Order: sequence, then structure tokens, then C-alpha cells
Amino acid sequence: MKNTFGNAVSVTIFGESHGAAIGAVIDGLAPGLPVDEDVIRHQLTLRRPAGRISTARREADEFQILSGVYNGRTTGTPVCILIPNADTKSGDYQTNIARPGHADYTAECKYHGYQDARGGGHFSGRVTAALVAAGAILLPALKQKGIMIGTHVSRCAGVKDVDFAADEATLALQLAALNDTAFAVLDASAGEGMQSAIEAARAEGDSVGGVLETAIVGLPAGLGEPWFDSFESMLSHALFSIPAIKGVEFGDGFALTDRKGSEANDGFFMQGDRVFTQTNHNGGINGGITNGMPVVFRCAVKPTPTIAKVQQTVDMKANTNVEYGGRGRHDPCIVHRARVVVDSIAALVVADLLTQRYGAEGWK
Amino acid sequence: MKNTFGNAVSVTIFGESHGAAIGAVIDGLAPGLPVDEDVIRHQLTLRRPAGRISTARREADEFQILSGVYNGRTTGTPVCILIPNADTKSGDYQTNIARPGHADYTAECKYHGYQDARGGGHFSGRVTAALVAAGAILLPALKQKGIMIGTHVSRCAGVKDVDFAADEATLALQLAALNDTAFAVLDASAGEGMQSAIEAARAEGDSVGGVLETAIVGLPAGLGEPWFDSFESMLSHALFSIPAIKGVEFGDGFALTDRKGSEANDGFFMQGDRVFTQTNHNGGINGGITNGMPVVFRCAVKPTPTIAKVQQTVDMKANTNVEYGGRGRHDPCIVHRARVVVDSIAALVVADLLTQRYGAEGWK
Amino acid sequence: MKNTFGNAVSVTIFGESHGAAIGAVIDGLAPGLPVDEDVIRHQLTLRRPAGRISTARREADEFQILSGVYNGRTTGTPVCILIPNADTKSGDYQTNIARPGHADYTAECKYHGYQDARGGGHFSGRVTAALVAAGAILLPALKQKGIMIGTHVSRCAGVKDVDFAADEATLALQLAALNDTAFAVLDASAGEGMQSAIEAARAEGDSVGGVLETAIVGLPAGLGEPWFDSFESMLSHALFSIPAIKGVEFGDGFALTDRKGSEANDGFFMQGDRVFTQTNHNGGINGGITNGMPVVFRCAVKPTPTIAKVQQTVDMKANTNVEYGGRGRHDPCIVHRARVVVDSIAALVVADLLTQRYGAEGWK
Amino acid sequence: MKNTFGNAVSVTIFGESHGAAIGAVIDGLAPGLPVDEDVIRHQLTLRRPAGRISTARREADEFQILSGVYNGRTTGTPVCILIPNADTKSGDYQTNIARPGHADYTAECKYHGYQDARGGGHFSGRVTAALVAAGAILLPALKQKGIMIGTHVSRCAGVKDVDFAADEATLALQLAALNDTAFAVLDASAGEGMQSAIEAARAEGDSVGGVLETAIVGLPAGLGEPWFDSFESMLSHALFSIPAIKGVEFGDGFALTDRKGSEANDGFFMQGDRVFTQTNHNGGINGGITNGMPVVFRCAVKPTPTIAKVQQTVDMKANTNVEYGGRGRHDPCIVHRARVVVDSIAALVVADLLTQRYGAEGWK
Repeated sequence: MKNTFGNAVSVTIFGESHGAAIGAVIDGLAPGLPVDEDVIRHQLTLRRPAGRISTARREADEFQILSGVYNGRTTGTPVCILIPNADTKSGDYQTNIARPGHADYTAECKYHGYQDARGGGHFSGRVTAALVAAGAILLPALKQKGIMIGTHVSRCAGVKDVDFAADEATLALQLAALNDTAFAVLDASAGEGMQSAIEAARAEGDSVGGVLETAIVGLPAGLGEPWFDSFESMLSHALFSIPAIKGVEFGDGFALTDRKGSEANDGFFMQGDRVFTQTNHNGGINGGITNGMPVVFRCAVKPTPTIAKVQQTVDMKANTNVEYGGRGRHDPCIVHRARVVVDSIAALVVADLLTQRYGAEGWK
Repeated sequence: MKNTFGNAVSVTIFGESHGAAIGAVIDGLAPGLPVDEDVIRHQLTLRRPAGRISTARREADEFQILSGVYNGRTTGTPVCILIPNADTKSGDYQTNIARPGHADYTAECKYHGYQDARGGGHFSGRVTAALVAAGAILLPALKQKGIMIGTHVSRCAGVKDVDFAADEATLALQLAALNDTAFAVLDASAGEGMQSAIEAARAEGDSVGGVLETAIVGLPAGLGEPWFDSFESMLSHALFSIPAIKGVEFGDGFALTDRKGSEANDGFFMQGDRVFTQTNHNGGINGGITNGMPVVFRCAVKPTPTIAKVQQTVDMKANTNVEYGGRGRHDPCIVHRARVVVDSIAALVVADLLTQRYGAEGWK
Repeated sequence: MKNTFGNAVSVTIFGESHGAAIGAVIDGLAPGLPVDEDVIRHQLTLRRPAGRISTARREADEFQILSGVYNGRTTGTPVCILIPNADTKSGDYQTNIARPGHADYTAECKYHGYQDARGGGHFSGRVTAALVAAGAILLPALKQKGIMIGTHVSRCAGVKDVDFAADEATLALQLAALNDTAFAVLDASAGEGMQSAIEAARAEGDSVGGVLETAIVGLPAGLGEPWFDSFESMLSHALFSIPAIKGVEFGDGFALTDRKGSEANDGFFMQGDRVFTQTNHNGGINGGITNGMPVVFRCAVKPTPTIAKVQQTVDMKANTNVEYGGRGRHDPCIVHRARVVVDSIAALVVADLLTQRYGAEGWK
Repeated sequence: MKNTFGNAVSVTIFGESHGAAIGAVIDGLAPGLPVDEDVIRHQLTLRRPAGRISTARREADEFQILSGVYNGRTTGTPVCILIPNADTKSGDYQTNIARPGHADYTAECKYHGYQDARGGGHFSGRVTAALVAAGAILLPALKQKGIMIGTHVSRCAGVKDVDFAADEATLALQLAALNDTAFAVLDASAGEGMQSAIEAARAEGDSVGGVLETAIVGLPAGLGEPWFDSFESMLSHALFSIPAIKGVEFGDGFALTDRKGSEANDGFFMQGDRVFTQTNHNGGINGGITNGMPVVFRCAVKPTPTIAKVQQTVDMKANTNVEYGGRGRHDPCIVHRARVVVDSIAALVVADLLTQRYGAEGWK
């Protein structure tokens, strides 16, 4: 369904950039899961624009949990979380101009002029705040089960961060640290390089993109519902909903395609009762099902489409070719802000697949 | 749902490598669509192993349409297409060994020993024949609507094919030609290089991977159901169901991440009544909705996991570490065979999104 | 899915009786449909308790449309409608007592004590206000298409209303009149008899039930998606979600079971271009698909479970048998209030099936 | 989705009356469930026409399990069960005549002449054989969990059977006995009366209907996913897919509507560790969730629409009014044959809701 995703656990999102509020409804959660409003607040802060490398739009992101949580725990009935919009300046937008790289033109084709085009409307990155909140509801419960999720800016504006540790214990420490980091990199100096490049792009009236790399540790082997609801299918489905994501790869992804089978396969071995792989080229997933190793995936985030530079486009009402110079408050880079959206998407998909396998009762 | 995919048009698949038959049920098709058994036969032939670069398993892929087609047209009720298995040699498989890179271990974790492990069972690439047939049912109807789909081996064993033409008319000719090509490349000499490299890998007891690039021309602007059922979401969901696919990217995909916004945006312009983009870095999709330009995407196909070389793995019954040298009949490369699976997936997703937008009545 | 229903058009509901708010998200609506807040307000008023025959709880039902409507028309993106709770008195409820006929005990079994039991929580009839609002959003658009929906109290407390007119034009007038009637009967004197009986039951500390009969006129022939999404399947699915509904029948329903085929079949005849049936024993549906005649169905509404009389039950914490005398503010009858919930359910199902058949584009 | 039903466990059906085969795909089953072909054969026999009170069409119903079962147990991957059609006589049908009470006219409206109209095509009761087989796959696994399902002809041709026993242990014995009974009644003399009435109707060229009453014992409390996937919602959705079913009621159903709340509520009491109800007017379901008492429901089966008597109808090609006298091989009554279809539907819904709650792992 269009704005609902997930089978056993589902999320429904709604709202427009300049409407009254955005929000999400999460359904299918087991009863009794701990919910921590501070975690939600923290995750929203990580997504929120800040400093010179972000849009000037400032949203407090004060949220309200309207249902489904009682005495700090999920009730098992739908959780609605609402985030009112506060700082909206609709005058900023010329709604008859199709901004290149945005959904303005395609929304016009699909909604025939009835869409709320202000600030990108329902297509605005603003709506990702609802996704972040939805995922954040799940984080304490996943943590209780020993599952951690974290994302770093693996590459941004051509600057590369170091790689995740291969060792699971070290990786878990990295994920914990990332979650306290405003600009999520493993190597702080890489992060400084990226931020300088972002500021430089901004100064030119341009924008930059990057690659987000995510790891999930602590997943049981056996998650994923092939064929069609393989772990990769479900996750990529939800990830490609995030505006600006144009590629998703698991494990070594596209880099596998130039290798031999002998270089791409991950040999198994037993240690104690548990089966490990010697390498993790397949990103913790074989045949669409988790194998118990860290799940690792990467998302390609294209450069923010809104730029100050003059671009060629069309006036959709006048049906004429026009030049357009970006106005409105926008980000020269959203890669670092998107990482917490990716974490939330991952949390939702993991909760769904866990619940499909073990049932709502299985969370007890 | 696990083995059912799609909203307005859905496909359900079933079957195991060494069972009686594999098949698919396609539901939600408009009544009166032309169905051409020769097209199905042709598509199955393109998928079928052939020559020295493929497995020795030879399946006639004689299919039967059991329902939903009458007098050469869809009835509007479910179409079941069945493909009996003929050439199965179960003695080839040691089912207690977890073959590296395969689903053996994860299936064991998920199905606790009850899975039909012979030949990979339900996880076998054999099941993709059912997907190919399912998609092939749709091709004549899509063609009638002016929609063409085609895939070439963009890269294989490190050898690169030329790119798709930027010009839509030329691209359409390329797609038509690809569909008559056994080893789908645009540049025949690249194809020879790839096939030599595949044979060399086979001689070493190893395997190779590659990248498939697909284009869809003739789509109306306005297809895709954001957020969650964006064109990219639906397509990637289905694509990641195909065994061996570890990455999916749209337009310039990961290559966009090192560019500036001014280099990634596709400016719009009008010519006559129609809006075009000057470039197609976004692969014909903005905000998850088609913009009327060719949809272009690429899939990373990992090297075939089964190889003759000795690998380290575990015996899942004895719980011991063992060495394993691949037996059974397998392909040193499946990239060229997978392309028709990708075409079928694309056809199914396009039919679904068209039907969501225009209804079953909209096909009249 | 649990709190989401519908395929092409879906509704998601959330909220608890004594929580901050209840609400609904409607997705999949075509863009440009007229939305009339007065219609929503009117429908909510028809549901609202009033007078001596209802609970003393008084809710203003001030609603807010948070998204998906712009300049009085649907945008095509999700509509969230929110209804804050105002008049809540949680002290009224002893949450450890399983009230007979309510969901208290089954919620305890399912949610293990984590449910928000105040006022019945998510199981409260209060949540039907969200359904009423969701359906009311669709009424102007359906009216534009010539589709009218109306429900009368066919039977209540043993008192019977007259039947719907067999003639379609007269029936349409009856439906229009019902929509302006607080206590929806066709024969005012029957309505008075029912209301007296309700007051009498209240005086005894007891409650009454009844039968709601609904008609939909103006539907095109050909709606419904057999087998599983037949018109009857979809409608009954949604109707049985309404608390207190224990039976649903279409056309003459259970009364057909004692007849002969010759008395149950509806003969067809042509008049001008259109096909009619001579009788309408099958309620406008053959084989799960509308035939163009009025769709007629009836719902059995059981007596309100909360009564003042002493009942035997259990204390779910103490695990003891106890006597319970109903407290809290409740209705001696909800039949007359439920009718507008039924109308909304019907509107949602009709919109879904229309959209499946004609697409979102088909509403233009 | 149209021909797929269920969330955690789903069934997809396909096929036409006079096509090559009908069948079903059941997905989402836990691995390792026992499957017994004799049970399937037995259930198909109970559905099969027999004797003077049935159609002369004789189908052997030889079925094949094509996938998803290995060594007598489910593998956890989709089970496809196929039933070839053997005894088809297409000459029996005039496909341009809209048979009253059948789907001929509505299918024409929906499928515009492309439907396979022979023998009712996809709308034929023949397709219920696939549903019976699908449900029969589940019966041994449900029995292992202590869950039994059975249906009797509660009323047929105006003759009434005795009621199910109120006592659960006696009821369980009744259910077991029903499953060995060709004409399923509790009181053999009532069954004889019914069969005489059926023969009398046949002699007149007419048909009769009836009421099926079903009980499910052994269900855990807590099954059902309100609001929209309440036990009653899911079950009625699937039941109304069965051709000829025009009413569904749970517990005392419509009879509750004339009662007082004090007469409709089921008081709770504890005995040992378990909570029981004193009566079972609500049919084992409160608030859409099972309470651990037997689930009881009734289906209204209309008289078979095909009769020999002359009826008024239309020729859909000539667009004229015509008289029609039934030809083809049909049943004067299908009530007794439909009961096993109802049992299968119940088995599928129970398996789905159990799996939603406990997960596929919960079946171990």
C-alpha cells in the first residue's frame, strides 16, 4: 500500500511540509515493549538541521504520542505519533515551477494540480521526521533483544570515512558511539573534511551527496521471508522510499560483480555452538535470510536537488521553458541527516520480520 | 506476503528445484490482454542454460497455462502457469553441507531441517523460470501500450559493454534487438570477451558475476505510489528477490554520490506538448514517480556461489567444520541468464503500477 | 493488517477511549475529490450520544484534518483526520473486572495487562467516531458519482420499522431523508416505539439491540473482486470490525435459506439499454459482484453489553469470581448511533472497489 | 488481494470449471507440519457430489501436491495443490444467457466477454474443491494442537437439525462424528427429512437452501487482530467468498437483536486456572478476539440458483429478454456439500491468526 509498509508490523505515514502536522501510525507491535520519549527526542535531534551545513528552517519537532503507549510501554494497539509543523514559510515557493531533481513535475503529472505543493508537500524530506520517530519507538525494545543499528557517512562530497570494523564486538562499540555523534563518522578527521566540502558547495550555491553505510548486529539467523519478502527486498523497499536514495547494496554489493565466486563466498565455520562466516561479503544475508553475522548495507544519497545555481526547467502552468534559481531554505547536504532515517527504516523492517517469525507473543 | 508480490497485479510463485513442478499465479490482470505462448517460450529459452558457459542441467521448460487465459486472451481471473521439472538428479547434493554463498545454512536455521534441500529446493534459481513465464505473459499487452523493456549485460567478469543510447528512439531499437540476442550485449565484441572470461573461470573451477542494466521506454509520467510504493521501492523489492542480486541502483545510482547537485539534476524542457529532461541522471524517476523519460536501473549480480574449488564450511548435522568441493551441475555465470528474469520482474511491476493508477478498466 | 483496511483505498485507525485523541488516515484517494467539513460534522453529530437514550458522555468531536486536503479537495496523498478526546472520566472504570460481553477479558489474554483498559481503550465504541469521519470524507465524491448510502433502524427492542421501498427512485428519496434524521427510521411512529422501549430498558438497568438495514444506490455493475475480495467479503470484513455487530446478511440473507431456488433467483430483464432484476432477493450482488441494482444488507447489533444489572464475572488480577454491577456512562442502545458507522464503512469499501476497478485516474 | 487471502498464512486460488485444472497455493505455513493425503482425499470426498441429491457431474478429484511438502511434512515454503478437471461438458452451457442468481451477468459486466463462461468459469462452485484441499492440508496440524472444526446442516429445506451440545466435551465428540458423516447432521432423522425434501425439490425442477452451523473447539483465548482483522472480520471475509453464502452470524447472531443485554451477555467464571463463560451467546468471541470458549457461527446458504423451471432473463449478446429453462448438470442442494468448504475456510483463518500471534516458530 502506498503510505503503509510492513506485514506483521506496519507503519503508515502522513503529512505535508507546510501542513498542520506530520505523523506516523505504527501497528502490530507486541504489547509491553518499552518506549522512551528521550530516545525519540534524541533521534529527531540527529535528523534536525543544524549549523551552517543545513537549511535555515528550524523545527522544534515537539512530538506527541497520541495512542498505543501507556505507562511507558506499548499497549499492542496502534501507536500514533504526531509532529506539528511550526516554521513554515510558504511564500518561499513558486509552485508552478518544476524544480529539477524534485517531485514537482511528477507530482503534477500524478495529482493534476491538486497536490499541496508548498515546500514539496507530501514529498518533502520533512516527512522523514515521522519515520525517524516511528523507528525510534522500537529502538529500546530492539536493544533489549541485543539488536543494535547504526549508520555512518561512509563517503560524502568525495571524502571517505574509514570502514566498519570486521570484528563484531568492535563494530557494536562503533554503533553505540555513532549514536551519540551529530555528524556520524568513524574517523573524525574525515568528518571535518566532509563538512568543509559541504560548506564549500554551499558557498558555490551547489550541493553534495554521499554514501551511508549501516550495520545491524545481534540479529538471529533465520530472518527474512523469501522469495518476495527477503530481508533485502523488505529493506530496500523501505529504503527507496526515502527521497534522494538512488542505490542500495548489501554486503560488498556492486563490488562483488568483478570478483570470482571464490572471492565472494563467505566460508562457514563453527566455534562453540555458533556458526560464523570467515568473511562477510554477503552482508549477513544468504538467500534473503539472515545468517547471524552483521547485516551491512549501503545507500547512495544523491546531492540535494535544491541549489542556488540557475537551472533550465519548465513553468507547468504557462507551459513554457524557464530559468530557475533555487530559493527557499534548503540543505547543501542531507547525507548526514538522512542516516537516522535509515536507522529507523532498518528498525521497522527488523521488527516486522522478527514479528513475522516469532509472533507478537515472541517478544515476551 | 512471502511468495506473493504486487498490489493491483500480483504474482505468487511456488515450487522446488527437484519437486514435481514450479509455477506462478498472476492475479489482477485486466480481461482481454493478448497472451502469446511463443513469447513465453522465447523468454524461457533466453533464461535456459545453453552451451559451455552454463550448467549441464537441461530443462525443456514445457509450460502449461492452466487457467485465466481463454482464446488467447486473459479472462481477468488468475492465470496459473506451470512448468514441470524433468531433469533432476538429487543424488548430486549432500544436504548436510552448508554450501558457502547459498541459502543452505539460512534455510536450515529457518526451516529446521524440514526444507526440501535437494538442488537448493525453493531457493534454487530454477524457480526464476516461473517468474520469467509470469512476466512473459504481460509483454504483448505492454507492447500494445508502447512499453518496451530490455536488459543488457553491462559488465561481466570485468569486461564492460557499451552504454545504452541516450536517445529514446535509438534506445528502443536497442531494446528490440536485445530481445533477439542470446547473450545480451550491445557490443558483440564485449560479449565475446565476457564469454571467454566465463569459460576461463569455469576452467579454474570458479565463477564470475556482473552488472545488468535495464531500460524501460514508453512509460507514462505519473507511475509510482510514494512514499512506500514508489517506483523504485516496488521494483527493488521484487529485484532483490532474485537470488544473487546484491545491489540495485536507479539512473546514475552510486555514481551520483560524488557529484554536485548541479551535475545530478536533470533540467526540464518542453518540446511540443511534452516535457523532457535534458539528461537522465535520475533514471526517469523523480520523487519515486516516473517522469516519462526512460527508466534505467542496474542490478549487481554476484558470482555464482557454486564453484568447484575447495571451500571451508560446516556439516550442519554433524556440527563440524569441513572442506567442501562443489559438485552438482552449476553455472560459472548466471548474469546473462538472469537478464530475462529482470525483464519479467520489471514487466510485473509496471503492470501493477499501471493498474493501480488506471484500474483494470484502464487497459481497454 | 490489523488496523488498516482496504486495497486501493485504505483506512488506518488509532486511538483509545481515554487517550489524547482518536483518528484515521485514509490513503489512496484520487486527487481532486471534494471534501466538505460540514458533512463530516453532520455525520459525527448523527453518531454522537444525545438525549435520554444515550450515555451521558458528551464529546464535542471537534476534528482537524491534518493532511491530504488542500483548498477543499483531496491532494491524493494520505488524509489524516484527528478527533481529540475531551470528556474522559477514567475513575469510572475498575480495570481488573472483566465486564461480560466486553473485550476486557480477551484484551487481557492478548495484551497481558499492557492494554490501556480505561473506558475500553482501543476497543471502545469511541473509536468509531474516527471511522465515521473517515467515511464522511468520501460522501461528497460518491454523491458526485450518483452513489448514495443510507441506513435505517430496521428493528430495535423488538419494534419493527417498515421496509425500504423496492423502487429505486423512491429508495433514493428515503436515503436522502434518513440522512437528516437523528433517529433513523422510515416510519416515525416505529421510531417512537423504539425509543420508548429503549427508555424502558434503561429504567430497568438493561439494554437493547436491533437490526440495521442499509441500501446503496447508484453503483455501477461490475464492482467486487472475487473470489476473496467479493463485494460481500470486503463489506462484511469491515462491518464485523464494528463492536457489537454479530451478524451480516445481504439481500434476503438468512430468509433465503427456507425458500426454493425459484423464489430466491432474481430474473433479469432489459429496459432500454439497462439490465434490471425483477426482484432483489440477492441484494444487488451476484457471484460477489454488483449487478447495478441497489445493494441491500443488514447488520445484527447486539444489545449494549454494559448494563446496571448485577452480573457474574471474574476479577482478572485476583483470579476470583465476583459480582459486578455496571458503572460508567453507557448507552442503553447503540443501534441508532451505529447506523452512521455502517454508512461510513460502506463508503470506504465502495471507494476502494471503485478505485480498484477504475484506478485513481478513473475519478476524474 | 483478489484471489489471495490471509496475512501470515495465505491461500491463493485459481482455475475454471472447464479449464485444465483448479488449484491452490498455501503460503506462510510453519515448517514441519504433518500433511496427510488421506485427510485431503477424505475431505474432497465429503464435498464431492454423490447420489440422487447431487449433480450428475462426477469428478475423481485426483489431486497432486506439487510443492511445499516433503517426506509428509510442510517445508515452510509454498504448498501448491492441483486438481485436474476431468468430467467437463461445455456443450451444456449457453454462454450468452444470463442465468438468474448466477454470476453470468456480473462477470459479463466486469470481464467484458473475455471471461471463460463455460460451466461458470472461475465462478463455479467447482473451485471450492481447491479450497477444501487447501484447508485439509492444515487439519492434522490443527488437531495436534487440540483444535477441531466441524459443521452440520443446521437447517435445510425447512427441516431443522438439533443444536450443537453446549458442553465442550460433548461438542468435541459431535465434531469428530460429523467428520465421518456424508450428510452432516447431528440427528439422523432430520437428515433423512432434509434429503427427502431435496429429492422432492429436484422432482419439481427446483432447489433448496439451508443453514450451516460450525463450531471450533480448542482455540486459545487471544486470537484475532482488531479492529479490522478481528476473528469475525477475517472469517466472514473468507466465508462470503463461497458462492451462495448470503449471511454469516456469530454466536446467537441475529437472534441477539431482540434480547436484552442481561440476556445476551455471557457471564464469566473461573474454574481451576481457566476462565469460562456461563453461556455462549457471543460464540466464543468478545471484541473480535477469542475467549477460549467454542467459536460458533452460522452461514446462510441460498438455494442453488440453477433450476429446471423456466425463468425470465436476458440474452447478453442479442440484448433481448428471453425465457430460460436450466440445463447443465447441477445440484438441487449444495448445503450439505458446502459444509466441508466452510470447515476448510475456518481452518485457514485459524492457522493465519495463530501464526500472526505466535509466529511460524510458534508451531514447533
